[in-house]
Amino acid sequence: MKRNVVGVEIERLIQLLARLPGLGPRSARRAALHLVKNREKLMQPLGAALADVLDKVSECSVCGNVDVVNPCTLCSDPRRDTTQICVVEEVADLWALERASAISGVYHVLGGTLSAIDGIRPEDLGIAELVQRATTGDVKEVMIAVNATVDGQTTAHYIMDQLEGSNVSVTRLAHGVPVGGELDYLDEGTLAAAVKARRSL
Amino acid sequence: MKRNVVGVEIERLIQLLARLPGLGPRSARRAALHLVKNREKLMQPLGAALADVLDKVSECSVCGNVDVVNPCTLCSDPRRDTTQICVVEEVADLWALERASAISGVYHVLGGTLSAIDGIRPEDLGIAELVQRATTGDVKEVMIAVNATVDGQTTAHYIMDQLEGSNVSVTRLAHGVPVGGELDYLDEGTLAAAVKARRSL
Repeated sequence: MKRNVVGVEIERLIQLLARLPGLGPRSARRAALHLVKNREKLMQPLGAALADVLDKVSECSVCGNVDVVNPCTLCSDPRRDTTQICVVEEVADLWALERASAISGVYHVLGGTLSAIDGIRPEDLGIAELVQRATTGDVKEVMIAVNATVDGQTTAHYIMDQLEGSNVSVTRLAHGVPVGGELDYLDEGTLAAAVKARRSL
Repeated sequence: MKRNVVGVEIERLIQLLARLPGLGPRSARRAALHLVKNREKLMQPLGAALADVLDKVSECSVCGNVDVVNPCTLCSDPRRDTTQICVVEEVADLWALERASAISGVYHVLGGTLSAIDGIRPEDLGIAELVQRATTGDVKEVMIAVNATVDGQTTAHYIMDQLEGSNVSVTRLAHGVPVGGELDYLDEGTLAAAVKARRSL
């Protein structure tokens, strides 16, 4: 885009918007125009919301969640079961599990998975801190809720190895048919796992 | 999403991001997380860029373009041909034509099209101002570069009617085969128009 058309300010806004996941250069341009056209209704509130989040939100030093308080609301909630730690890859996974109200325990956000290619080592994921958390205090269970990908499973096995010999039981999420899923569209691995883990009615 | 999970600040940011074109509720959540994870590199600059645009950018009172100066850079550029006014629906169309360096004249941004269903009348599009601009001064041509949609064509005809009897020649963009386009994938209307407007080689 030529500088003299949109001006350096809008161009910078477009470039930054294009770095958000889900927005490419073209949709970032549309988004920027939409913002300019809706100054009072959208651009001003968005600027204020960004400043607000920037000012108040930080990473929880215990579990890695993002929140306005540190330790986060989940870690400091007395109703949560602190004997169970659920290990997730990303904060987005934590949010997904919370939306499902699936976890009564507390969390540990790794921030990624082990990856030889990307050079991500156990130190980068705070796995030592996780082992520390799991083996001190009254923790009974570490539930590994990483993605069912190769990197995810490698990470799960590494954590399992690190916790071997402790009194903590290590669990993982069940594999099976997604609720509402049609068998015809499922891959063989999932189907085989679902058959293997079948339950009596 | 439950309030106690993400906090009201992040939730507000997600809601505002979801109102950008191209982002739905799920991708807005991902974008918000991406921002929180990249505080220094993305969230801070984006907040600053928004404040900058909010502070400096406004609508050109002559043509409706958005720019840091008013009249905009295009309207005040002495090299532009002020005898030719190119009428577009949206600022995005103006940008597209400028990227193609297709227009040597100046612009008039309608901000939409006439629409009985949406209740958009000539007054809402500033068509009287356009006619005023076109009939005073030394304007020779009004090029109507609205979209080739029903509403666009209705608007084009309305503008043509308003300019009838003046000395201004009213033109429209040519219909035809897009450059690089394959005939097999084109609709009948475009093909018929391309044949009708054929040129000798």
